[in-house]
Amino acid sequence: MTTVPVLGPDSPARNLVCRACGAQFPIAAQHACYECFGPLEVEYDLGALKRVTREQIEAGPDNIWRYAALLPAGQDPALRVTLDPGMTPLVNAGLLAAELGITAPLWVKDDSANPTHSFKDRVVSVALTAAKALGFTRYACASTGNLANSVAAHAARSGTRSIVFIPSDLERGKIITTAVYGGDLVAIEGSYDDVNRLCSELVETDDFEDTAFVNVNVRPFYAEGSKTLGYEVAEQLGWRIPAQVVIPMASGELLTKVDKAFAELVEIGLVEAPAEGWTVFGAQSAGCNPIALALHNETDEITPQKPTGIAKSLNIGDPAAGLYALESVRRTGGWMEYADDDEIRDAIRLLARTTGVFAETAGGVTVACLVKLVKSGKLDPTKETVVFNTGEGLKTLDAVAELVGPTYQVKPSLKAAREAGILS
Amino acid sequence: MTTVPVLGPDSPARNLVCRACGAQFPIAAQHACYECFGPLEVEYDLGALKRVTREQIEAGPDNIWRYAALLPAGQDPALRVTLDPGMTPLVNAGLLAAELGITAPLWVKDDSANPTHSFKDRVVSVALTAAKALGFTRYACASTGNLANSVAAHAARSGTRSIVFIPSDLERGKIITTAVYGGDLVAIEGSYDDVNRLCSELVETDDFEDTAFVNVNVRPFYAEGSKTLGYEVAEQLGWRIPAQVVIPMASGELLTKVDKAFAELVEIGLVEAPAEGWTVFGAQSAGCNPIALALHNETDEITPQKPTGIAKSLNIGDPAAGLYALESVRRTGGWMEYADDDEIRDAIRLLARTTGVFAETAGGVTVACLVKLVKSGKLDPTKETVVFNTGEGLKTLDAVAELVGPTYQVKPSLKAAREAGILS
Ligand SMILES: Cc1ncc(COP(=O)(O)O)c(C=O)c1O
Ligand SMILES: Cc1ncc(COP(=O)(O)O)c(C=O)c1O
Ligand SMILES: [Zn+2]
Ligand SMILES: [Zn+2]
Repeated sequence: MTTVPVLGPDSPARNLVCRACGAQFPIAAQHACYECFGPLEVEYDLGALKRVTREQIEAGPDNIWRYAALLPAGQDPALRVTLDPGMTPLVNAGLLAAELGITAPLWVKDDSANPTHSFKDRVVSVALTAAKALGFTRYACASTGNLANSVAAHAARSGTRSIVFIPSDLERGKIITTAVYGGDLVAIEGSYDDVNRLCSELVETDDFEDTAFVNVNVRPFYAEGSKTLGYEVAEQLGWRIPAQVVIPMASGELLTKVDKAFAELVEIGLVEAPAEGWTVFGAQSAGCNPIALALHNETDEITPQKPTGIAKSLNIGDPAAGLYALESVRRTGGWMEYADDDEIRDAIRLLARTTGVFAETAGGVTVACLVKLVKSGKLDPTKETVVFNTGEGLKTLDAVAELVGPTYQVKPSLKAAREAGILS
Repeated sequence: MTTVPVLGPDSPARNLVCRACGAQFPIAAQHACYECFGPLEVEYDLGALKRVTREQIEAGPDNIWRYAALLPAGQDPALRVTLDPGMTPLVNAGLLAAELGITAPLWVKDDSANPTHSFKDRVVSVALTAAKALGFTRYACASTGNLANSVAAHAARSGTRSIVFIPSDLERGKIITTAVYGGDLVAIEGSYDDVNRLCSELVETDDFEDTAFVNVNVRPFYAEGSKTLGYEVAEQLGWRIPAQVVIPMASGELLTKVDKAFAELVEIGLVEAPAEGWTVFGAQSAGCNPIALALHNETDEITPQKPTGIAKSLNIGDPAAGLYALESVRRTGGWMEYADDDEIRDAIRLLARTTGVFAETAGGVTVACLVKLVKSGKLDPTKETVVFNTGEGLKTLDAVAELVGPTYQVKPSLKAAREAGILS
């Protein structure tokens, strides 16, 4: 007996499966296991995935939907809720490699090039496309900033109501870039973890029955969107998996899904398994490093924190996918690092100066951790490496505002230019 | 006798020609006519352009270099100085059209999706690629902001020194986003027109012999980069020219080059000439409207202004290509409008709310003028229209900062949410 998947006739998604105990559930707006409260993940018809070819993907649009046959929703273009994110540049960072003593190719996957300038457009496009198919008519999220921008923009383009929840102390770049789209924006006097807790309660109320919280009740579909970052890197390298990747972590979801994307590409035959596998490195800030600390302390016990520091988009003190991030990094022989605010600022400038990419604090975290991983020898400078810049410097201007500025200030005359030393 | 073009063996550029008197000059870093001081333009080998096919373009990369065969420089990928801008989204603005009473398709060409988030990446990539071929080793510009961002980022990626000149009162988004790349940044205590005048003097000095000012001594190549916006719109519409386009004006260069791009596509046989031609509309702010005023006053006399108002990127009081912009608009039966600061702010919000595109003030100017053109009947609401958003809202946050913000501010509890009216 074949049943038409809830998410449309061409969706390869078959079940939700508990990441903790393996229990299976039908496709629905469910995010926690009824048996053990573990997080759920989408399970696919492996046969359908195996029929997908490189040619089919390459003939698709220049955005995440080229991978629609590997995603839970969005196979029918007319039914997508999307800004068409993805296929962002993979920038050759030769000058940065030279400064760090990296002799193999070094790449920056620059996801600030997405429509609302962070990788969150990927997860939101997949989550909201699934949410629409599941019948939701209002879009929401609990956000550290970028997710808010993206949900509000997606809602605007699709003409749908939205209500977005953020901690009230976010950067003004992120607040304005959410509010300008005209949906509801709720500033919560508390941390992201407080915001997230409130949203978990709201989602159970009658008033929110019509509302898809992208990272709460439709989280399994949301999480799948991050896989497209892994797919793209492999495709852009000519259908090859890089030896090493360095990835920022908040909930830890992105890191685990890039790892999953690589594994999936091998399993379904789209890339050859690299002889030496691949190695996953995770990056956090010193102000919020619960996952990295657990790794350093050789424990599975992730102790929740009260986050501080300028990398606000990564400030999740109680990371939902932390355990799975630990598992990815341990299994692949990687490591995790964390960087303090000064290191983050320096790294933003280093990346800008050597690649022309202006990253937000999350990108600064990642590049700062790259620097530390090279110094400590944890990352092999003779192996090809991809660093993920997941956000845009314009959203966190304060991070570098005190450090950079005009090198000269002069009156508009040759005489003034000469006196200032611009002319000899 | 065939000569190898200075810009490389595959460049279709053959001469520079004076836009005023028609005098011809060899390809070089020359921007004004030795006969009449008129501005120069690149002239091509028409036969070479006519050999370019749609298939050839469609097989190219997803950026401006797919049109390399129609550009003066950049045919050899290894010799480009570029962030690979272009092929930005053409967004269907159905909800905006509905609000304005436009019944034909309405599109937003969203050039905020470029690497430094304005259309200037196009002109800088072409100008600096030509500059490198011409032997320059330092990159510069006189800028109202976006050009500065782009030149500094291009210089960083290519590992080249840069010195960028801006008015000292620019938005902080634009100043920091230039300074972060580490080149020299000169803040001039004066208007853009003062900055431009100083740069015209500096370029004649020995100290600046090695320096390409993208919009001064290599301006003819720079200007050609804007053509790619016109090419892309036509290609994205399925090789068709839209009936109407609405384009922001500072120097007026972009508007004339989009018009030129359409004419070229027809001339070389890549698109069919539309039966009723196309109509070009120009947009300025009320604080800087010298070109629009000349049109309204039915004169060719463009009276220089001291610009004011929030649309700083368009604040050129003495526009170099103003005459040619007038000519394009008059020839095609179009019109020019200007919008005041409040209208600009409202238009930024209108565009964001209906399309998910967050534009800078220049985009607000353009959409505000679209609104006025529809109201006055100058623009035909029954004909297909493309509006150009040329810059990014994150760079001009102050424009809307007072107008938008959280719709609720509450403590993290269901009780607080209920009291605030988020829950019933
Ligand atoms: C810019 C940026 N990078 C990385 C992340 C981390 O994502 P995840 O929660 O999947 O670990 C976030 C999360 O908000 C983010 O905003
Ligand atoms: C965002 C933006 N749009 C439009 C323009 C107008 O360009 P042009 O000088 O070619 O008219 C500029 C010029 O700086 C700009 O920054
Ligand atoms: Zn379970
Ligand atoms: Zn002349």
